[in-house]
Amino acid sequence: MSGYFDKIDPIKFEGPDTDNPLAFRFYDADKVVMGKTMAEHLRAAACYWHTFCWDGFDVFGAGTFSRPWHELEGQEMAEAKLDAAFDFFSKLGFPYFCFHDVDMMAPAVTMKEHVANLGRILDPLEEKMGETGRKLLWGTANLFSHPRYMGGGATNPDPEVFACAAVQVRAMLDATKRLGGENYVFWGGREGYDTLLNTDLSKELDQYARMLSMAVDYKHKIGLVGPLLIEPKPHEPTKHQYDRDVGTIYGFLEKYDLLADVKVNIETNHATLAGLPMDHEIAAAYALGIFGSIDANRGDPQNGWDTDQFWNDPLDIAKSMVHILRNGGFTTGGFNFDAKVRRQSIGAEDLFYGHIGGIDALAKGLLSAAAIIEDGATDRFLDERYEGWKGDLGQFIMKDASLDTLADRALQESYDPKPRSGRQEYLENLLQRYV
Amino acid sequence: MSGYFDKIDPIKFEGPDTDNPLAFRFYDADKVVMGKTMAEHLRAAACYWHTFCWDGFDVFGAGTFSRPWHELEGQEMAEAKLDAAFDFFSKLGFPYFCFHDVDMMAPAVTMKEHVANLGRILDPLEEKMGETGRKLLWGTANLFSHPRYMGGGATNPDPEVFACAAVQVRAMLDATKRLGGENYVFWGGREGYDTLLNTDLSKELDQYARMLSMAVDYKHKIGLVGPLLIEPKPHEPTKHQYDRDVGTIYGFLEKYDLLADVKVNIETNHATLAGLPMDHEIAAAYALGIFGSIDANRGDPQNGWDTDQFWNDPLDIAKSMVHILRNGGFTTGGFNFDAKVRRQSIGAEDLFYGHIGGIDALAKGLLSAAAIIEDGATDRFLDERYEGWKGDLGQFIMKDASLDTLADRALQESYDPKPRSGRQEYLENLLQRYV
Amino acid sequence: MSGYFDKIDPIKFEGPDTDNPLAFRFYDADKVVMGKTMAEHLRAAACYWHTFCWDGFDVFGAGTFSRPWHELEGQEMAEAKLDAAFDFFSKLGFPYFCFHDVDMMAPAVTMKEHVANLGRILDPLEEKMGETGRKLLWGTANLFSHPRYMGGGATNPDPEVFACAAVQVRAMLDATKRLGGENYVFWGGREGYDTLLNTDLSKELDQYARMLSMAVDYKHKIGLVGPLLIEPKPHEPTKHQYDRDVGTIYGFLEKYDLLADVKVNIETNHATLAGLPMDHEIAAAYALGIFGSIDANRGDPQNGWDTDQFWNDPLDIAKSMVHILRNGGFTTGGFNFDAKVRRQSIGAEDLFYGHIGGIDALAKGLLSAAAIIEDGATDRFLDERYEGWKGDLGQFIMKDASLDTLADRALQESYDPKPRSGRQEYLENLLQRYV
Amino acid sequence: MSGYFDKIDPIKFEGPDTDNPLAFRFYDADKVVMGKTMAEHLRAAACYWHTFCWDGFDVFGAGTFSRPWHELEGQEMAEAKLDAAFDFFSKLGFPYFCFHDVDMMAPAVTMKEHVANLGRILDPLEEKMGETGRKLLWGTANLFSHPRYMGGGATNPDPEVFACAAVQVRAMLDATKRLGGENYVFWGGREGYDTLLNTDLSKELDQYARMLSMAVDYKHKIGLVGPLLIEPKPHEPTKHQYDRDVGTIYGFLEKYDLLADVKVNIETNHATLAGLPMDHEIAAAYALGIFGSIDANRGDPQNGWDTDQFWNDPLDIAKSMVHILRNGGFTTGGFNFDAKVRRQSIGAEDLFYGHIGGIDALAKGLLSAAAIIEDGATDRFLDERYEGWKGDLGQFIMKDASLDTLADRALQESYDPKPRSGRQEYLENLLQRYV
Ligand SMILES: [Co+2]
Ligand SMILES: [Co+2]
Ligand SMILES: [Co+2]
Ligand SMILES: [Co+2]
Ligand SMILES: [Co+2]
Ligand SMILES: [Co+2]
Ligand SMILES: [Co+2]
Ligand SMILES: [Co+2]
Repeated sequence: MSGYFDKIDPIKFEGPDTDNPLAFRFYDADKVVMGKTMAEHLRAAACYWHTFCWDGFDVFGAGTFSRPWHELEGQEMAEAKLDAAFDFFSKLGFPYFCFHDVDMMAPAVTMKEHVANLGRILDPLEEKMGETGRKLLWGTANLFSHPRYMGGGATNPDPEVFACAAVQVRAMLDATKRLGGENYVFWGGREGYDTLLNTDLSKELDQYARMLSMAVDYKHKIGLVGPLLIEPKPHEPTKHQYDRDVGTIYGFLEKYDLLADVKVNIETNHATLAGLPMDHEIAAAYALGIFGSIDANRGDPQNGWDTDQFWNDPLDIAKSMVHILRNGGFTTGGFNFDAKVRRQSIGAEDLFYGHIGGIDALAKGLLSAAAIIEDGATDRFLDERYEGWKGDLGQFIMKDASLDTLADRALQESYDPKPRSGRQEYLENLLQRYV
Repeated sequence: MSGYFDKIDPIKFEGPDTDNPLAFRFYDADKVVMGKTMAEHLRAAACYWHTFCWDGFDVFGAGTFSRPWHELEGQEMAEAKLDAAFDFFSKLGFPYFCFHDVDMMAPAVTMKEHVANLGRILDPLEEKMGETGRKLLWGTANLFSHPRYMGGGATNPDPEVFACAAVQVRAMLDATKRLGGENYVFWGGREGYDTLLNTDLSKELDQYARMLSMAVDYKHKIGLVGPLLIEPKPHEPTKHQYDRDVGTIYGFLEKYDLLADVKVNIETNHATLAGLPMDHEIAAAYALGIFGSIDANRGDPQNGWDTDQFWNDPLDIAKSMVHILRNGGFTTGGFNFDAKVRRQSIGAEDLFYGHIGGIDALAKGLLSAAAIIEDGATDRFLDERYEGWKGDLGQFIMKDASLDTLADRALQESYDPKPRSGRQEYLENLLQRYV
Repeated sequence: MSGYFDKIDPIKFEGPDTDNPLAFRFYDADKVVMGKTMAEHLRAAACYWHTFCWDGFDVFGAGTFSRPWHELEGQEMAEAKLDAAFDFFSKLGFPYFCFHDVDMMAPAVTMKEHVANLGRILDPLEEKMGETGRKLLWGTANLFSHPRYMGGGATNPDPEVFACAAVQVRAMLDATKRLGGENYVFWGGREGYDTLLNTDLSKELDQYARMLSMAVDYKHKIGLVGPLLIEPKPHEPTKHQYDRDVGTIYGFLEKYDLLADVKVNIETNHATLAGLPMDHEIAAAYALGIFGSIDANRGDPQNGWDTDQFWNDPLDIAKSMVHILRNGGFTTGGFNFDAKVRRQSIGAEDLFYGHIGGIDALAKGLLSAAAIIEDGATDRFLDERYEGWKGDLGQFIMKDASLDTLADRALQESYDPKPRSGRQEYLENLLQRYV
Repeated sequence: MSGYFDKIDPIKFEGPDTDNPLAFRFYDADKVVMGKTMAEHLRAAACYWHTFCWDGFDVFGAGTFSRPWHELEGQEMAEAKLDAAFDFFSKLGFPYFCFHDVDMMAPAVTMKEHVANLGRILDPLEEKMGETGRKLLWGTANLFSHPRYMGGGATNPDPEVFACAAVQVRAMLDATKRLGGENYVFWGGREGYDTLLNTDLSKELDQYARMLSMAVDYKHKIGLVGPLLIEPKPHEPTKHQYDRDVGTIYGFLEKYDLLADVKVNIETNHATLAGLPMDHEIAAAYALGIFGSIDANRGDPQNGWDTDQFWNDPLDIAKSMVHILRNGGFTTGGFNFDAKVRRQSIGAEDLFYGHIGGIDALAKGLLSAAAIIEDGATDRFLDERYEGWKGDLGQFIMKDASLDTLADRALQESYDPKPRSGRQEYLENLLQRYV
């Protein structure tokens, strides 16, 4: 027992009016909303890296957190961290967690040691999962922190680095399968470039696709059921990352024939960095058929890096949740809390405040979105706005028309389309009613 | 004769040391560089809209230019503008020009009048082209300025608007064919949304693809040889435009099976707005096989809208030109000067200063890029950096390996890849030698 | 009577649960919050320009609104617009409005005509104000739309332009005095530069200060009681505006000894463009003693220009309102709605939807902020966080210490400060309780 | 002797045509330009932190550089680093260097140890300076890396932290005096906030000013001649830093009566982060009388954090250098290379490539700016543009006019200012002639 969270009791739902900062105000796991419980809708996961591996350092300063396991080493450190993490997960009550290989294991020098050290933590991990009932939303291999990956994992100019990456990916696909993980994620933090002057972009895209194809084949071989997910991010740490955004990844998957097995894990902060609103990325992913999962967090609107704060903007969440509900919600994915407390938030309880605020914001957003959908006014407005496309002219355009026949018709019938208001302010007010 | 440019003589090349602000310092049309003349490399086009239609207004103030044709109306205005424009084009000596339907013609109220008015200017236009030897790089229909397009052209909720757009597109495809235009451009300034609250993104993408498919069919029908080009832009005027950037458009073209006939017309300023360096967009377009043409301009690095200034950044141009030369240069495309003088630059000569500075910057960039390629050091560095991929392991990975066999090999051979410097500063210094 | 708003009844408060989109849900003018009515807290003003002068045009397209007065000319247009505007103001029920000289009057060619035309509308305007009980929050002269101001008003290289600006400023100071205006605003849309290459920044700052000094003197001479307000904006239309943000303006006012008479009118969208959160600008203005008034609107988080949308972000408004309440609220200032409907929102009712949503958001934000202050937990946290500064060491530092005596004390007493959590997530959750 | 740079000979000037990547192409230290040598103009300094302390780590990955001294500890590490650094400085031939206390010394736990460890390295440092002839441009205390500073140094909620900061500042002011340092810098990386929710901005500004006042007094007491310099930065690591930009700092210095002793050290990358062009910040600092020194580097135009790359943009440098030359150049300041090689640039020679490219770019920019000034056309244009202000009306406005008398004169003389072109493109072309 780590004891680090001993003073904190399991978090309970107490309703919107509670004064208890260590209670949920909106997240009532078993409450049914539009036919599913909140837990089933949100499929919340805590992440291992920000809360248990990061010590509060940044580029300008040393770690501030002084968690007890940070003073240990090797397997002992790994197991103390595991204890603390599952104590936290259990008290928090999120059904899922996520991790990178290196988050969980004793640090390794060689690839053999890497495989061995990862293997050595899987038994205790599996045991913890069994004891606590926590499930693995997704696993992933860290192909960016070790110096060997400074020039990329799959997209490295050196094929030996690609081979090392393959070792890690295989080991984590195996681990994800063994632990019942429901998805497997690729985040290409170094799959990009710092300057095009030293980079063969076209060749690197081929390499990247090759790694994904291999992983797809291996996934099928071992019977891992869930999809592979690519996590879009436009830059940071790399100047440019190939997995820029949903639209770009879709093109990449089409080009390399990966659409059947690979989807996206959209992170709010990364959408922000790419200059895109989160609801756009979600709507686009559904439209393109590659929606997978979400990394729930947010950036700072005035800062240009990945602040990974807890997502708590009611408008953004409600708008995002509307698209998720309209499209039937998550299948294998969920909301992974890829979020961290600020480095001045050094207490054990701050970790709870962050996650409680985050899940409450999602729960409230779910209620808002359900209310919007049940109210129906927005959907009715949309139906009416596009109703012309269900009529004769609309059908003609989408089916039989050529440019010639359509232009002739427009001239013959002297089309002079009557302008109709887009009613943006009206719709924004409607949205406000439910947030 | 307009007389507006009477005081200005045809612009001549006078070399880098000239003091004459109305002479070219680097653009020597017939000078041969790597086997082609500068004119053949650059295929420069002046645009009609910024120089002859815009009167200097912005959102906060009225026009400042007082060009004489702005005081006329209808066909008389159109013909006076045509005179002035071809006088300018001839004195400038760019081989090409580009225009939107509405730039050239007398304003129209109905669609029938639109077709008629466009038709009425084609005779004098064709005559002017014959007299002056100017050629059409591309034509395009303006589907964004008329109020009917406030909610989009092809992506409008009202199919009658789509039909009106079809009238314009057909007329301009016909005009482009008749005038020997070498490409045809779609810029979707309103093909996007102001809020997702009133928008069916998925349906609108279908509509947009439908318009492009119709245009492809019609292009084949009338025997227009060059490609259709989509011009990426992420936003402005619309909050979000579907044609965000090269990667996103590639995915769209794949999805709707348009890759055979549609490429991209990349604008520097739009890449900047999308958060992407111009050399990236060019390299990506070549890698994805959709490079078409370029709108040469630049934005202001501190402003977040389309300033459309003349492109004169030596580093950016040299880096971009390297990718163009490496990939064999333009085929049907060219450098269209989608650039405008500042609204305080009210003189006739300012129009020349802008274009002279712009073409000189491209010419100098061409010389820089040719020197970099002829020097060979950068290309040699790239070859050496990726040489491992030509060896046994690299070939194994790209051909026969599975994740399993590759990971096994890595473990068996105890790969511990030797780090090699990426040499970014060295390569940047090399680049500086030639700019 | 314009009749344009005939179908719309005066807007009433109906409470949060109303389905009526033409009713207030939170803005209950006479409701008392922390000792003042909502109307007294918010001092809401509608603006003339966005709603009555703008026709929906943007840089890429023509006007879309077709308001009836846009088809008239001269004084007839001015009076028809006046009718419609005061009908709107009255039905909306905001106590205040704001206008630029040119918004209100028949267009003028010469400066004499300018003065005459402004004068001719003041009688009917005063009458309307009397009839409807609307008051003037502030007046301002438009020194940016006329071509003569393309290079600045006060900061123009040509002193004759400065003199023309002086004519407009005097006339509007007089008009503001006559109409009982409570403040007078300077927005320096062209007081800046497009390139430093043609600009003497230092000289232009002197010119700008000179204009403000003259206006201060004149204000005292005519007995205009309220302050002059400078409205910060970093750029647009100009590449760089001198009035960048609150901190920069403070320095300018200090340098030119203008602090006694000039304060700031902070616009949310302009803070966004400057890369600053709105609550920062408000807190900074209070800290520096120059808080004056607010232009309530918002930008689009993904777009880099002044979208001037209605401000409806609950978190931002609540955080801003906390600073306003803590500092005692407005004195002469208020919330001017410098906001416009989207150009697709073409109906008369859309103008109401925009303003209703905006004032409801402010009213809700006021309730949130009052609740936060009455709860007290945030203020208590702040008090405790800084309590050391009330103690002996804190007082020593702020009063008697020198670097020497303080450093000696630190070494002698072996200070090793105990880290305390900044509790950001806890405080964010507290905030969420009240929005 | 570290031996780390043994394979590299002292860098020499070989002229623009050299193929030697380890030679200067433009930086010819003794070449006279406008009456001073290049060395006297540029006053170049290498910095200690990026090149000798940073090991190549970033937030997503471990160090990549493996410099030999990184494997040592304590005083031994400090001395090995010192050896290597001065070997580098000497071979590079820059006359100056800069350092933070913690860069130079063995790490310390307590404040007493801090003072002792700093003291212990000063003897060898002074000796090295004597041996090699290198001089100290400026010293500074690191008040941001130690966890105690997570909430600020001078602006910390805990006065004991302020006292610890005072210990460091005193020790480094003393060290700077002893070493003949020509300036002393404050960079307030943590002097700001992560959220206003837990921050008393007004109180923290008072604290910050208090620290500066103490430092000013102490500086006078010990006879340190050069100015204190505040380095502007808008954010990172902190969400908001008080020292946002030149304009904001000017206001702060005015408010707290610090203008006589404190100036600014402007960093290019920080200007970029603040949304400001570098030439603006330089021009503004001169206009406000607070120009001190420059941290020469650049950001990545597409990335939103401090990439601290070597500054090599010819246009930006030439434009900046024009303002420096026009204002008489540096007095106590210089160009400190606050720049680092990319983390993939792992070789010893990469450190030279970076600095060589950087100083060559500055030297070339100096030549460009001198040529622009000697050509005179730009200055003549400026003189003519503002010439009206030297005439009767201009003098009247700046001296005797009131708003009343000026407005009357404008009306009486029927001013109708004749528009004149701002000639931006012409001036940009002129600039291009010399870069
Ligand atoms: Co993530
Ligand atoms: Co992230
Ligand atoms: Co374009
Ligand atoms: Co553009
Ligand atoms: Co405003
Ligand atoms: Co605005
Ligand atoms: Co710096
Ligand atoms: Co920096």
